[in-house]
Amino acid sequence: MKTKNKKPTRPRAETPKGFRDYEVMEVLQRADMLKAISEVYHRYGFDALETPAVENVEALGKFLPDIDRPNEGVFSWLDESDHWLALRYDLTAPLARYYAQYRSELPLPYRRYAMGPVWRNEKPGPGRFKQFYQCDADSVGAPTVAADAEMCLMLNEILENVGIPKSDYVVKVNNRKILDGILEKIGLNHLQDEKAFISKRDIVLRTIDKLDRLGPRGVEELLGSGREDESGDYLEGADLTKNQSQLIMEFLEAKNVTTEETIKNLKGIVKGSEIGLAGVAELEKIFEVISASEKNCRNIFIDPTTVRGLGYYTGPVLEAELTFNIIDHKGRKRQFGSVAGGGRYDNLIKRFTGQVIPATGVSIGVDRLMSALNDFKKSAGKMVGPVVVTVMDPSYIKYYQSIVEELRTNNIRAEMFIGKSKDFGKQLKYADQRQSPIALIVGSEEIARNIVQLKDLTLGTQLSKSITSNEEWKSRPAQLEVPRSELLDNVRTILSKYSG
Amino acid sequence: MKTKNKKPTRPRAETPKGFRDYEVMEVLQRADMLKAISEVYHRYGFDALETPAVENVEALGKFLPDIDRPNEGVFSWLDESDHWLALRYDLTAPLARYYAQYRSELPLPYRRYAMGPVWRNEKPGPGRFKQFYQCDADSVGAPTVAADAEMCLMLNEILENVGIPKSDYVVKVNNRKILDGILEKIGLNHLQDEKAFISKRDIVLRTIDKLDRLGPRGVEELLGSGREDESGDYLEGADLTKNQSQLIMEFLEAKNVTTEETIKNLKGIVKGSEIGLAGVAELEKIFEVISASEKNCRNIFIDPTTVRGLGYYTGPVLEAELTFNIIDHKGRKRQFGSVAGGGRYDNLIKRFTGQVIPATGVSIGVDRLMSALNDFKKSAGKMVGPVVVTVMDPSYIKYYQSIVEELRTNNIRAEMFIGKSKDFGKQLKYADQRQSPIALIVGSEEIARNIVQLKDLTLGTQLSKSITSNEEWKSRPAQLEVPRSELLDNVRTILSKYSG
Repeated sequence: MKTKNKKPTRPRAETPKGFRDYEVMEVLQRADMLKAISEVYHRYGFDALETPAVENVEALGKFLPDIDRPNEGVFSWLDESDHWLALRYDLTAPLARYYAQYRSELPLPYRRYAMGPVWRNEKPGPGRFKQFYQCDADSVGAPTVAADAEMCLMLNEILENVGIPKSDYVVKVNNRKILDGILEKIGLNHLQDEKAFISKRDIVLRTIDKLDRLGPRGVEELLGSGREDESGDYLEGADLTKNQSQLIMEFLEAKNVTTEETIKNLKGIVKGSEIGLAGVAELEKIFEVISASEKNCRNIFIDPTTVRGLGYYTGPVLEAELTFNIIDHKGRKRQFGSVAGGGRYDNLIKRFTGQVIPATGVSIGVDRLMSALNDFKKSAGKMVGPVVVTVMDPSYIKYYQSIVEELRTNNIRAEMFIGKSKDFGKQLKYADQRQSPIALIVGSEEIARNIVQLKDLTLGTQLSKSITSNEEWKSRPAQLEVPRSELLDNVRTILSKYSG
Repeated sequence: MKTKNKKPTRPRAETPKGFRDYEVMEVLQRADMLKAISEVYHRYGFDALETPAVENVEALGKFLPDIDRPNEGVFSWLDESDHWLALRYDLTAPLARYYAQYRSELPLPYRRYAMGPVWRNEKPGPGRFKQFYQCDADSVGAPTVAADAEMCLMLNEILENVGIPKSDYVVKVNNRKILDGILEKIGLNHLQDEKAFISKRDIVLRTIDKLDRLGPRGVEELLGSGREDESGDYLEGADLTKNQSQLIMEFLEAKNVTTEETIKNLKGIVKGSEIGLAGVAELEKIFEVISASEKNCRNIFIDPTTVRGLGYYTGPVLEAELTFNIIDHKGRKRQFGSVAGGGRYDNLIKRFTGQVIPATGVSIGVDRLMSALNDFKKSAGKMVGPVVVTVMDPSYIKYYQSIVEELRTNNIRAEMFIGKSKDFGKQLKYADQRQSPIALIVGSEEIARNIVQLKDLTLGTQLSKSITSNEEWKSRPAQLEVPRSELLDNVRTILSKYSG
């Protein structure tokens, strides 16, 4: 990829492929959203933790130590002492490392929240980048499902705190143990052949995850011998018998109007399987705790079709879905879908400690939730630029600065024009580009008369669309002449349009 | 470094060398501080920008493209298409890349602020880590020194907004052009032999930077033939003649009581040098603008000894110093020193665009300023943990949850104990470890009587230091029995001690 041109070339100014720059409104909105989320985490008794972006590769746990280069999926490099370092790809692996490292000093349970960027060395797609934000809360050393119930409740309050009303979201809960029970009932037992069990379970999980797209019929085919997709390609199935896949389909359709009825259905389906019944009992317990919250309990449902892809979940899994409609990139109307999820992962910390440490957590897809908020509010928020004090005559620069000083002291966003241009039109163009509400104009005449010209730029833009004659323009309806001493009040009056 | 033990070993749970984890109080304090800083940046008309952590190596500008591996100092790696990527080592290089990339769409001047971690692959030292935060504001395309004056004013307001009073800081300003003028006067001219000029200038800059440590005498020796240090090692000097170094020493001592007098001294020193006089004229202009701010102008001084190490500054340089005393790690009393700095760098963006784009900026050492605030306030802030609802009897879990729900709904940080232990003492120990203000206790007796036991944990800790007899303990002065309906009010009363 090297250029053949021998003369020294300038570096290209490019964001690296798959990465992006976030501009002002996105940065501010994200900060507001993360603040709203962390308020809830804090109120729920979670403590903030920030681990570094860089971890030892072996702590991330995706890799075998002897491979020449760690697998794709993470950004990694060898340090000076031939040791692999990597950028974290989520916030859970660093939590496991941190907890294992400091467990003797930490309270038990340890409740922490974390927010920040994570990095994935994967092919980017539309709206998917190699760096993105996560915002997680986890309880480590929390064996009771009251901890999982709390995660469900917390997701409710988070969505409301960022501005999504109850009518527009649901939190769905399921339990991996129920699926394990069903697999046991259809003849797959994790105690007999764990490898075969895990491999089959993962195929079933992936198949169930396709329910939205394929419908029940498609899933049933894929659980069996396989199916032909729209393009004519044949997809291998999970090779379950008709009877076997039938029980899984029954499970997927077990949801009923009330939680009580759904639980009754589930009990019937896993009857005879100890682990399956334990899974249903955990869901019952979760809903007992949830029922203590009158304001939130009606937004939380058991949904057997919620399985979540990751293999590491061991018990309850949950997902928050936004239910309002959007038009997707193919022009189809559909529900916005998942913005957060999580579940119980009792084995993740064991890698370090050798002991099972029960843990449960939720992770919020920050970028997805932000995009949802913008869809929902139908606007990405409006930027209000600074009041711009133009520089008509550089010899009055101190006078201009004293105006800026007065405005800033009164908490009004303001600046003096510090660019090169002495061209007044260009200064006004700058103010427009900054979405400034007001430009101030002071020349020698204004100083002599102790006044300031005040240009309402928003009004000006509106008028420029409707005014057609030169005469109308000459009356300068968007321009105001005020005594210097009344400047502050007049600026405030114009700005009040924006906050209102 | 591989272990010889062949059996599968568990990964070690360790923060990578030179990195650190930030715990709750530090995370919260940093968030507060960054908010206070960004408020000022915003009010001054700067817009937020967040570039990714990863940049193309050539955009960072420290490296030659043909070297096998980029120099030390940054974390870098080859991607799949044999292209070097790197973690940013500051926020200025990404700004230069961003501005060059989008300049046709950006307003001119472009004013942006940015905050976030940067990474340095350097040997860590006490208080110095491989990942740390920066928080910068820059004006690109701003040729007038009004932009530099604004940076000085802004540093003032930032320090006050984070809680440092005027009496405890100064902002010092200098101008590289004055030093260039002096070098010209002593026979080094950048137009004749730029390389020799830059090399000599860099030695002089580094020598002046040692003034604090060596004193004027030591600096004078180092500007000349060299000097022996305390350990007996001989340090090579800049090899200036007596007359040459004398002019530099005069410059360093040019500071006088008033800015007017300092400027007069400087004019005398650079007399005859065009660039030197231009530098002094810029300082005069800066102070003209600054004088518009009555509340800030008395904290800003010309200080010829402020040179700042980086070679890329081309004009005004500035530094904010905290003047209160601390005891350093060697037990010596000294001023806290620099927490922020910056200056004009007119050539940095030229790498990409080929054109000189004048720019100026400031960077705040976030970790240093945070440490200063903790020194200054003499406390790192006190953590207030959640109210902990203990689980006396798991069959009442819904009841406990309803208490938690009521507290959280009323914006009180609270949680139910979700750990394994049924041992009540361990639950109270957990509450202590979390620095909980209150533990709530409800068993079957309390439920029957519709009351709640409320344990004031802070009072309890205080009492445990003073109470000696068993009888005193039995009266349980830190424990309170309240009707369930009056729980909220009683919790609020106890918590009011913390906010007060």
